[in-house]
Amino acid sequence: METTVRNKQVILKHYTKGFPEESDLMIATALDTMELKVKPGSSAILVKNLFLSCDPYMGTFMREPDSGSSEVAVETLPLLDAFLPGKPIAGVGVSEVIDSDDPGFAKGDFVWGIVGWEEYSTVNSFGRFRIDVNIDVPLSYYTGILSVTGLTAYAGFFEICSPKKGETVFVSAAAGAVGHLVGQFAKLMGCYVVGSAGSKQKVDLLLDKFGFDDAFNYKEEPDLNAALKRCLPQGIDIYFENVGGKMLDSVLMNMNVHGRIAVCGMISQYHIESKEGIQNLPVVIYKRIKMQGFLALDFVDRFPKFLDYVVPYLNERKLVYIEDIVEGLENGPAALFRLFQGQNIGKQVIKIA
Amino acid sequence: METTVRNKQVILKHYTKGFPEESDLMIATALDTMELKVKPGSSAILVKNLFLSCDPYMGTFMREPDSGSSEVAVETLPLLDAFLPGKPIAGVGVSEVIDSDDPGFAKGDFVWGIVGWEEYSTVNSFGRFRIDVNIDVPLSYYTGILSVTGLTAYAGFFEICSPKKGETVFVSAAAGAVGHLVGQFAKLMGCYVVGSAGSKQKVDLLLDKFGFDDAFNYKEEPDLNAALKRCLPQGIDIYFENVGGKMLDSVLMNMNVHGRIAVCGMISQYHIESKEGIQNLPVVIYKRIKMQGFLALDFVDRFPKFLDYVVPYLNERKLVYIEDIVEGLENGPAALFRLFQGQNIGKQVIKIA
Repeated sequence: METTVRNKQVILKHYTKGFPEESDLMIATALDTMELKVKPGSSAILVKNLFLSCDPYMGTFMREPDSGSSEVAVETLPLLDAFLPGKPIAGVGVSEVIDSDDPGFAKGDFVWGIVGWEEYSTVNSFGRFRIDVNIDVPLSYYTGILSVTGLTAYAGFFEICSPKKGETVFVSAAAGAVGHLVGQFAKLMGCYVVGSAGSKQKVDLLLDKFGFDDAFNYKEEPDLNAALKRCLPQGIDIYFENVGGKMLDSVLMNMNVHGRIAVCGMISQYHIESKEGIQNLPVVIYKRIKMQGFLALDFVDRFPKFLDYVVPYLNERKLVYIEDIVEGLENGPAALFRLFQGQNIGKQVIKIA
Repeated sequence: METTVRNKQVILKHYTKGFPEESDLMIATALDTMELKVKPGSSAILVKNLFLSCDPYMGTFMREPDSGSSEVAVETLPLLDAFLPGKPIAGVGVSEVIDSDDPGFAKGDFVWGIVGWEEYSTVNSFGRFRIDVNIDVPLSYYTGILSVTGLTAYAGFFEICSPKKGETVFVSAAAGAVGHLVGQFAKLMGCYVVGSAGSKQKVDLLLDKFGFDDAFNYKEEPDLNAALKRCLPQGIDIYFENVGGKMLDSVLMNMNVHGRIAVCGMISQYHIESKEGIQNLPVVIYKRIKMQGFLALDFVDRFPKFLDYVVPYLNERKLVYIEDIVEGLENGPAALFRLFQGQNIGKQVIKIA
């Protein structure tokens, strides 16, 4: 095996403005060679990255942190720094340990956690999880259903929304990585589940593959309020929010008393100059609605419990998990922008090695 | 004592549109006489009303329920029906029992609960509380600090916001009936408390009488965001929301991670044609903010605990409670519109008898 490499990376060219484009990123191969060894005493872990996760929030990390964009508040995140021009972007990845000065990790271990978008990363143990290879699932699942994506769906639905059997659940961006899991968790719980998505193909998937009770293509609905009333005439007890904007405004009008809204994302608002104002917030008073933003990282202590919940369903094929895998780090930027444009179906993953 | 009366009432003339006006109400004396006796077997309670509470939400109840105004959702309230043109409006009142067919209430009892704005009301026991006359406070306090107003401040602050000593608290409409209590509860808890109000006189009261650490007049601040940063450079842990609109948008930008927002009211939005859209909601995600609408009626089981908390502070003069009392039912409409226009200081009360 080689002992030095020239690391290939996906670099942020410059801070983005407005909707990010593929050309805001570039592929670069380091001029310097990198030794595949960690320094003794450094507590570092050297990993070879195998799979990378594409996530909607990454677009917001490509903007200048102080540019006044309201959703960018990366200083609040302990695990992930803002992206810097000239440096590789970063995200959740699955990696193999090549060398380690940390006693908790050994050469040959498979791990997941935040890594740079590059072939090799030098990382530490903070927020790094060893993968149990005895669990019979594809390694790529640890970019999604068995890591942040899955924990996001699980914690947002169960911990934030406290669902009860028979309640009605609406999920936006329901064919997305998080959404299609939330919908299935809700069905397994005995809820009535409706999803929205942005194409006929996705709506068909929701109905035929993921077992949603009803679904609609928001791009084909002239009146979102009417679409919600048609699909959920009994009102909405739980809304799993992924999109924001006009959808949220319409959902608020259809929420039931004591409804709960888990705010996981607001992707429709991430890359527009002037955000759509939400006008119907006053209904949260009489309807006594709880709206709560959350991140999976606040629920890492639930991770073992989450695996106990989700792995048996996967093994029994009671949970359908779809990945949209693009091969090659050089195709990473294209994969990420497919996601930003909603062209992916299921979890968008890059296979590097 | 007289046995029949002609009941004087404050009647809603017609459903209101836009900002309500005093002329939307009228004073009427019934042509028919009313016997001061309840029918045997009716389980009814006949009360003579002594004090009435003026509350911001009452303005929203004067509009047609189906007029599409988003905050009007009176069907969700078990205790209070929408106001009807030609009928008396209603609200919290303190009354004396004149006659009762309900075994739980006897002639001479003092009670509080929802009553019509009229001299005499026939009511039932649902949501009716007997006043303990051994507690040495003015009877009028049961329109406010010792009933819905006080429970609203208590439940919103303690139950929704789970405050901790040393946290920062911002209260809008802080000189109002609920706001001035929340601020004092927060100070008693050991929090750093800032309030906003709409006049210099109110700001002075916050600082001099109610013990707020800082306060500002929102009408004099060209930039609410800057005002909040000046008064709360360490950010806001807890926001007690009474006003909505631009203030909420600015507060969102100044909330700390894991902040909590108790949504008690959004009075700035109740009577305007086109609501101000809230643009900064996406920050709730990275900041993991909980925003929760609530009504005191969901916390009636905490009422005894609340009295145990608040009465000693009142008796020890550790809590300042200010009432703005107008005399005479015929001056009720004027008192209510004083409140809608923010001209009251402290709890707006009408003394009828």
